[in-house]
Amino acid sequence: MAAVHETVVMEGHLIDSDQLRRAFNRIVEEGGDFEVLDFRVGKTNADPSRATLSVLAPDPHVLDRILEGLAYLGAAPDAKGDAQFAPAERDGILPDEFYSTTNFDTYVRLGGRWVAALDQKMDCALVLREGTPRCVKQGQVKRGERVALRGPGIRVRPPERSRDYSVFGFMSNDVSAEVNKAIAIRGAAREMRRARAANEKIVVVAGPAVVHSGGDLHLARLVREGWVDVILTGNAFAVHDLEKSILKTSLGVCQMSGRAVEGGSRHHLYAINAVNRAGGIAAAVASGLVTSGVMYEAVKRRVPFVLAGSIRDDGPLKDTITDMLVAQKAYVAALQGAGMCLMLATALHSIAVGNLLPARVRTVCVDMTESVPVKLSNRGTLQAIGLVTDVGYFLERLAEEVHEGERTTAAQTTTPARVGKRGAKAAPRAARRGARPGRRRR
Amino acid sequence: MAAVHETVVMEGHLIDSDQLRRAFNRIVEEGGDFEVLDFRVGKTNADPSRATLSVLAPDPHVLDRILEGLAYLGAAPDAKGDAQFAPAERDGILPDEFYSTTNFDTYVRLGGRWVAALDQKMDCALVLREGTPRCVKQGQVKRGERVALRGPGIRVRPPERSRDYSVFGFMSNDVSAEVNKAIAIRGAAREMRRARAANEKIVVVAGPAVVHSGGDLHLARLVREGWVDVILTGNAFAVHDLEKSILKTSLGVCQMSGRAVEGGSRHHLYAINAVNRAGGIAAAVASGLVTSGVMYEAVKRRVPFVLAGSIRDDGPLKDTITDMLVAQKAYVAALQGAGMCLMLATALHSIAVGNLLPARVRTVCVDMTESVPVKLSNRGTLQAIGLVTDVGYFLERLAEEVHEGERTTAAQTTTPARVGKRGAKAAPRAARRGARPGRRRR
Amino acid sequence: MAAVHETVVMEGHLIDSDQLRRAFNRIVEEGGDFEVLDFRVGKTNADPSRATLSVLAPDPHVLDRILEGLAYLGAAPDAKGDAQFAPAERDGILPDEFYSTTNFDTYVRLGGRWVAALDQKMDCALVLREGTPRCVKQGQVKRGERVALRGPGIRVRPPERSRDYSVFGFMSNDVSAEVNKAIAIRGAAREMRRARAANEKIVVVAGPAVVHSGGDLHLARLVREGWVDVILTGNAFAVHDLEKSILKTSLGVCQMSGRAVEGGSRHHLYAINAVNRAGGIAAAVASGLVTSGVMYEAVKRRVPFVLAGSIRDDGPLKDTITDMLVAQKAYVAALQGAGMCLMLATALHSIAVGNLLPARVRTVCVDMTESVPVKLSNRGTLQAIGLVTDVGYFLERLAEEVHEGERTTAAQTTTPARVGKRGAKAAPRAARRGARPGRRRR
Amino acid sequence: MAAVHETVVMEGHLIDSDQLRRAFNRIVEEGGDFEVLDFRVGKTNADPSRATLSVLAPDPHVLDRILEGLAYLGAAPDAKGDAQFAPAERDGILPDEFYSTTNFDTYVRLGGRWVAALDQKMDCALVLREGTPRCVKQGQVKRGERVALRGPGIRVRPPERSRDYSVFGFMSNDVSAEVNKAIAIRGAAREMRRARAANEKIVVVAGPAVVHSGGDLHLARLVREGWVDVILTGNAFAVHDLEKSILKTSLGVCQMSGRAVEGGSRHHLYAINAVNRAGGIAAAVASGLVTSGVMYEAVKRRVPFVLAGSIRDDGPLKDTITDMLVAQKAYVAALQGAGMCLMLATALHSIAVGNLLPARVRTVCVDMTESVPVKLSNRGTLQAIGLVTDVGYFLERLAEEVHEGERTTAAQTTTPARVGKRGAKAAPRAARRGARPGRRRR
Repeated sequence: MAAVHETVVMEGHLIDSDQLRRAFNRIVEEGGDFEVLDFRVGKTNADPSRATLSVLAPDPHVLDRILEGLAYLGAAPDAKGDAQFAPAERDGILPDEFYSTTNFDTYVRLGGRWVAALDQKMDCALVLREGTPRCVKQGQVKRGERVALRGPGIRVRPPERSRDYSVFGFMSNDVSAEVNKAIAIRGAAREMRRARAANEKIVVVAGPAVVHSGGDLHLARLVREGWVDVILTGNAFAVHDLEKSILKTSLGVCQMSGRAVEGGSRHHLYAINAVNRAGGIAAAVASGLVTSGVMYEAVKRRVPFVLAGSIRDDGPLKDTITDMLVAQKAYVAALQGAGMCLMLATALHSIAVGNLLPARVRTVCVDMTESVPVKLSNRGTLQAIGLVTDVGYFLERLAEEVHEGERTTAAQTTTPARVGKRGAKAAPRAARRGARPGRRRR
Repeated sequence: MAAVHETVVMEGHLIDSDQLRRAFNRIVEEGGDFEVLDFRVGKTNADPSRATLSVLAPDPHVLDRILEGLAYLGAAPDAKGDAQFAPAERDGILPDEFYSTTNFDTYVRLGGRWVAALDQKMDCALVLREGTPRCVKQGQVKRGERVALRGPGIRVRPPERSRDYSVFGFMSNDVSAEVNKAIAIRGAAREMRRARAANEKIVVVAGPAVVHSGGDLHLARLVREGWVDVILTGNAFAVHDLEKSILKTSLGVCQMSGRAVEGGSRHHLYAINAVNRAGGIAAAVASGLVTSGVMYEAVKRRVPFVLAGSIRDDGPLKDTITDMLVAQKAYVAALQGAGMCLMLATALHSIAVGNLLPARVRTVCVDMTESVPVKLSNRGTLQAIGLVTDVGYFLERLAEEVHEGERTTAAQTTTPARVGKRGAKAAPRAARRGARPGRRRR
Repeated sequence: MAAVHETVVMEGHLIDSDQLRRAFNRIVEEGGDFEVLDFRVGKTNADPSRATLSVLAPDPHVLDRILEGLAYLGAAPDAKGDAQFAPAERDGILPDEFYSTTNFDTYVRLGGRWVAALDQKMDCALVLREGTPRCVKQGQVKRGERVALRGPGIRVRPPERSRDYSVFGFMSNDVSAEVNKAIAIRGAAREMRRARAANEKIVVVAGPAVVHSGGDLHLARLVREGWVDVILTGNAFAVHDLEKSILKTSLGVCQMSGRAVEGGSRHHLYAINAVNRAGGIAAAVASGLVTSGVMYEAVKRRVPFVLAGSIRDDGPLKDTITDMLVAQKAYVAALQGAGMCLMLATALHSIAVGNLLPARVRTVCVDMTESVPVKLSNRGTLQAIGLVTDVGYFLERLAEEVHEGERTTAAQTTTPARVGKRGAKAAPRAARRGARPGRRRR
Repeated sequence: MAAVHETVVMEGHLIDSDQLRRAFNRIVEEGGDFEVLDFRVGKTNADPSRATLSVLAPDPHVLDRILEGLAYLGAAPDAKGDAQFAPAERDGILPDEFYSTTNFDTYVRLGGRWVAALDQKMDCALVLREGTPRCVKQGQVKRGERVALRGPGIRVRPPERSRDYSVFGFMSNDVSAEVNKAIAIRGAAREMRRARAANEKIVVVAGPAVVHSGGDLHLARLVREGWVDVILTGNAFAVHDLEKSILKTSLGVCQMSGRAVEGGSRHHLYAINAVNRAGGIAAAVASGLVTSGVMYEAVKRRVPFVLAGSIRDDGPLKDTITDMLVAQKAYVAALQGAGMCLMLATALHSIAVGNLLPARVRTVCVDMTESVPVKLSNRGTLQAIGLVTDVGYFLERLAEEVHEGERTTAAQTTTPARVGKRGAKAAPRAARRGARPGRRRR
């Protein structure tokens, strides 16, 4: 059948990461075929697998399409060529053959050398700036900048969907309302401790339902206790949170009904008015107007927050960035150094942040239905683990768990007998696994 | 327009209960028109409203259809006639003109006297048994029994959607994921205390997700502490609960993943096998095989439970009633005296129980999405208040609330200063309202 | 109980519109009580009902709160006073006692005369501009402008939830996945014909799922055939639609999987790039780059569209308004004269538009789950009728229905025998009802 | 780390079927480790892959648990032993060490020979009957029958998740509301034609929402045109369908509102009464009482149907099997020979049928939310492809597609030029793929 063929090489934890199967699928879906010329399974962790495939296609056009698809999966022709570039025609206008980034770590071959791209995020152009390839949003590319073209010289390394990654024990990235949430949340807490130990930022992306559900109390506690490094949200979340602090006596009404009772949304506007009059959130905290809540704790703890405006906003608050291009830049800047991300009951901001995160950032998406996690996955944020539950419950329990975990960890540190590979048969599995250094992967 | 007309009278809390508006709608929807001849709003609680309407229709057929619709809403022609009856042709076969019941309290005119129907539930025939009208499921009517026909002599009294009823404070029967759950659950707890004080049964209808979500622990506590009088469920819930008690070491796996891992459903079958070998659930508790969980507490506390089989069951357990007609009778019997009903994460059993409950039973339906409460409402279980949250969270918090409430109540009882109508300005509104005897309704 | 009381008067279709019941609820929820001093039900359409209530409260503070709540429901103390005003302190900063608008038609008493407010929409300040009260977004109020204060002199008139309104026949504003969609869609089509006949604008609010579900084809047809007067959406919808037109051969892939396949989102960026290079959407149509789709038809038919940016956008398109304050103003301007609004598979834009629409605009909200319609209702867009179905199906069927309806109407116009009140017993009920001029409401 | 180890062999399309990755995961999740001793990737379809793993575990107990898990995945120790059996203690009581079946094809080693199990379905015992292993529901095992024990001598063969299987083109078993439904439904239609060509039964599992959504019309057409071989459903679906046929004039009401209007559920009971009086569904068709609908077409075409009762049933119909054990047997019998299964808007019956189907039966699950497909997958019905859409739309479009497909196929048969491997570059991919005989899989 095949008129043309090409040999490609894949390396890495090919089975664990599901790359090999997806590559096989991809070839056949596009109308091609393949032969496995060689497959060597690594025997130790230091020795990854390596497969050599011959890709067959009915014509060169199909072959090119397949090879491009495989490139996004980390498979590349065994070619020597450098990446190719063309200048941006105008500000924000790319050459048609531009390469579009994924959220996988990306390498660009420049002068025979593979160079890692900076600012990894999906759906960007790869632009050479000061000799280094960077992921740059289409609208921010400047006229004349050198933009990488699809074709040779670009490789990605998909992350392993490793079991070590799996924050919920064994859930990989399945989504279901039918898991024991207590156990899943314990996993998320464990992951937060890991991120903190690794000096990675913990990012919280929050929607207004966090306040409606009563989870604000617990999120405020997490901020206060130092478990949150960045808050990315919108105007509505901040206003609900501030309203709750400012309008103490009236708040009950709103909280009790959970909806805009007649005249109830006046409180919303009142809070905006009061905070804006004070000069913004930080000033409102300083002046004593705002004395509790998530925003209060963020100001007190100097936890940066970015409020991105949206078309449905009231007000908005002075702190809200109303221009989306500016807001996206602020999100990107705030995400530098992120190692874990909690997406809490918001489709809009979760997808926005998913677009900006490298796939290596461990991500938990909490929502009342399966649809937000499924959407994230469909948009390429494959690393997001969906947890279908009430966000109020999630936060309450999470705040307890990280607290609890702290105590346990402290206790363990003083217990040398606990150290040792697999010695403690009765130890919880998760604890055991954390201690296992020599596990092999393929 | 109208060729024919008829005068009907409505009495009761016509506005509170939404009866008047629904009657107006009904007339127009069916193609008729109306004139309000007289409307008198009662000034006190003891003095209900009374409306006299002239219903107009283009032809007698339409008029009849309207009048029948109005009858189900409690509006009746100001006629003097007795209800009419015809014999059931055969076992389970009704005369075509049979009256079909609602879940509203129903009165039948016999010999000029209004007699309340017994066993009120929806979608039944009204059968005269020993001189008294009873709601009897179609399939259980015996040949020759006298079956009430639609037409004169039957009246219903829709329950008020009173504010006193509203278990969540002010939510009426709105459904939303966006309420503060803590406050709503507090309302449910308050209602449970009310039911217990009134010596009414508290019924729990539970689906397997109660176990999956980890809510079983808290439901077991509620049973143990005497807050549950009847459990209506199916085979699956009981098996999951028993499996958790019996297979301690294996349980972790199943609980951690929340799904049938390879080989995992063996545990399910194993639990059934072990309990059936012991001779059923009570025997399994007696023998020491089952030592914890909801079913365990139910056996220990002698809380009756009914397990209705379903087409998707494994096993089933010996305790499971596999014939649906028998199971329905058992549900009906168990619901006698119910004053409150908690429907927990099950569409199947909730709708089944909704069909069997009088509308006066205060009902809370907890589910992860709006769809189950909406379905209940569409099927006539209008009294069900939907609470969209994680059932595991609901039960955990509810168990704490009833506990807490107990203590508070105890404390209050010893504080005579709290007694007195509206004296305590600082008292929570709900408490104040409970004490208000003279509130007027229309 | 009551230390203080006040007499209020309500007028209008008090039962139909549910105002009376909500007023009763409101009083009791806030801790008050009431007595109906007088209630007169109007006998004809021209003669609305009128109720006089004595509102009782334990203290003046509670009474004020009740009276404010009642004011939002259209009940007002029978007072003579004018509305009161205070100047805005600074740009965007209101006096604390500002009145917050609803989406109900609002009247302000100035010099003893009731004047209708302009630009009716919810959650605004009422500002006197050129002697006329206008609803102005908080952020757009200028320093020194006179802002209406809560208290006397402001009245609202809630719309009737009339049966004539009910676009789906009898559904009122219930939400359910379990209705016969074909019939509901027929009702929506009927409403669109009504709006067009009344020379009111038909507004479409669309999310990207319209394209994903294949509904774009049918929406394009509706635009082409003149059924859409305004399109309010965001960047993503437009890009998906344009991508489908531009990248014909590649589109299959994207459409077949419904998600970003590896490398697939390149098409998204490519479309933005190509359209922006052309100079925007209209230019891209003019140049022949874009030759089909919703945006194409909109340009060809000169149907205005507003693309509001969001934090999750790629690109964005040149046509996308990235500043939310500007985008909100553009939405507001485009909504002038709206008589019907179709909200299609987007929570974000639907809530945004709901905030900007007077309650009198007949609104249909189509989504896959109950949650968006429920949210709209909770946020005060009570008039939105929820239709839980696949938006692709809705549009396909709707496009057929309006077409079909056109033909039927044309046929009917030539059939004088069809004219006549209720003569035609076989006519569909909806047709009959349309012809009924003398229906009474209370 | 490992104190004990064991060598296992896996054979088949190890990567395509995802077996290898799941086996790796399984080992690590249970606390073990592994080394790949040998991995040979087959080069042609006739030459499957083969992997030899050394499984390591800290103690023999963990090793056993791992090996049992691997056995369910098709990996087996390279042992020679026969399967072992023990007698059932009593009717319905298994020996504790019973083997619990999956829905994968299963082989049992008897006298050194691998024998395929009959009646493959999940969660059964494997019982030797007349010398052949059969999957038998726990409750149907008779005292003394020989029941297979877990351990050696049992192997399963998981089905490939082949691309040929993928009825929706390339969707594999992802679930999303965001796919182009038209294309997905075309895939389902293609699969139905394949099943019919292969002389396999097409099974329809239907819930009442099929009628509510208006899909009954189209399902009736599919039955009439010979596309349905078995209907598995419950009492409610049949009653709704019959009511629609019998109560023509009244039906409008019910259909228009989609819910039990006041008095509306009388129609439901009336239909049951009328059909039962006639002597059941077939008699009601024969007598001319029922003249249209799904049940009518089924009777006319002699398409067998099974109505399983449930706890929420009204009536029930004489045809409804009220005992669940009897109903399950009837479902099992009806599923013999099934090659394709459409699950339509019912969680209850879909899960029930999923429990009874071998994994090789190609299954499509249509529902309004992701939750039913996700539940099916969690319960082991991994082959079910979820399609999140309105079932009324699905059926309407499907009925058109199979019709259309028929015509196209007929046309193609007469076009010899279309035959030929890959020659037709312009042919739709699906058509091309069907013609490709030599594709390799691993």
